[in-house]
Amino acid sequence: MLKLCLKTINSRSKYDGIVQKRCHLPHGHKGRCDEFPFLRHFYEMDKSVADKIKRDSTMTTGAAWKSEDAGPNRILRWVMLLSDEELKNFGLDMSKLKPGIIAKLREKAADYDSCIEVALKLTWLVYQMEDAPQPPRAIREYLEGFFGQMDFGSTVCEVCKLPISFKLFELAQRGKAEIETCHKNPRLHNAENVGFAHRECNIAQGAKTLDDFYEWIEGILERSGH
Amino acid sequence: MLKLCLKTINSRSKYDGIVQKRCHLPHGHKGRCDEFPFLRHFYEMDKSVADKIKRDSTMTTGAAWKSEDAGPNRILRWVMLLSDEELKNFGLDMSKLKPGIIAKLREKAADYDSCIEVALKLTWLVYQMEDAPQPPRAIREYLEGFFGQMDFGSTVCEVCKLPISFKLFELAQRGKAEIETCHKNPRLHNAENVGFAHRECNIAQGAKTLDDFYEWIEGILERSGH
Repeated sequence: MLKLCLKTINSRSKYDGIVQKRCHLPHGHKGRCDEFPFLRHFYEMDKSVADKIKRDSTMTTGAAWKSEDAGPNRILRWVMLLSDEELKNFGLDMSKLKPGIIAKLREKAADYDSCIEVALKLTWLVYQMEDAPQPPRAIREYLEGFFGQMDFGSTVCEVCKLPISFKLFELAQRGKAEIETCHKNPRLHNAENVGFAHRECNIAQGAKTLDDFYEWIEGILERSGH
Repeated sequence: MLKLCLKTINSRSKYDGIVQKRCHLPHGHKGRCDEFPFLRHFYEMDKSVADKIKRDSTMTTGAAWKSEDAGPNRILRWVMLLSDEELKNFGLDMSKLKPGIIAKLREKAADYDSCIEVALKLTWLVYQMEDAPQPPRAIREYLEGFFGQMDFGSTVCEVCKLPISFKLFELAQRGKAEIETCHKNPRLHNAENVGFAHRECNIAQGAKTLDDFYEWIEGILERSGH
């Protein structure tokens, strides 16, 4: 695998004491360090796609509002690895949240490196969607160094296995996400376990692993006489 | 079918001008008229179940909050049969709602008689759930007059066809509805088309008809190699 720079990057996040952000440019690169160099192309041509990859990789899902017991807004996944005691130092009192919310937040916890790997994997998959833009050569080779050769148009929904078009991202900008990041096992956030799914497929899968989901719908078809 | 009283019942709802509520006791009954006599037993022993049947039969789904463009709270389904002009007289300005909300509200429209039939059907089904209480004889015979003989323990989820236990209603009281009213065709609210489903089954079905849902998951299993 490609050797990376991995120098720490200073930021002003209050969570910097937990994990130092790092540079993921190739080792010995020229110019400034960059945490997400593989997203540069999308940041230039379609910022919402880059934002989505970064957000889904590094942040928990969260309520769109803020209230004492609904839980915090999206929060960095690695922050959720801290103990209840440590979280209090960041102004987050887990004991005030409902058990269901706590479980959901803790389930989304993941370490920094896993989150970066997820971002890499999702970017690699987006470029292989139907109607996706061609990656610049440097980014293509960089991503292929992690996950193998790209096969353009080959990205399918992890659930229903139908191709996913890059154009569906545009619908999201009009309010409704049609492509969602999907976890084959909803309780594991790492490169191997993530992919994209249609919104309706992701909703149907729910909290089940993909294997359990397929088994479940097999049973449904059997019992309903199909 | 049983001949009903059908005398109008006075109430103080602002919507009384649209539809007059009617008595559904048998024709020539003694005592006071009653719109939902078949729910009396549940109103005595488990009010939340009676409330749910009445609510799901007669009201649209609705936001739990009230804001200008999120749409109104639950509203009587037959009110949604009125024109935009008529609705203004009831303080509801449809032109202020988002197109998606309008479509959803209009889709839930149903006339008064269909709603009563749905309530009858759901009550008949609840008594046939596993672990359900025995209906008083008068209510049993009344409901059987509409939908045929009861077969106790025979009510299954409309989607997955597994039995549904009456005990799941209790979970709803602790915040999470585990049994939902389900429509084989989500755009038809009548006795033939309704039943109960597990929450996760209802969510998986989404806006699809049951036939389309089964076809969809057949395709998923095929493409995923199951």
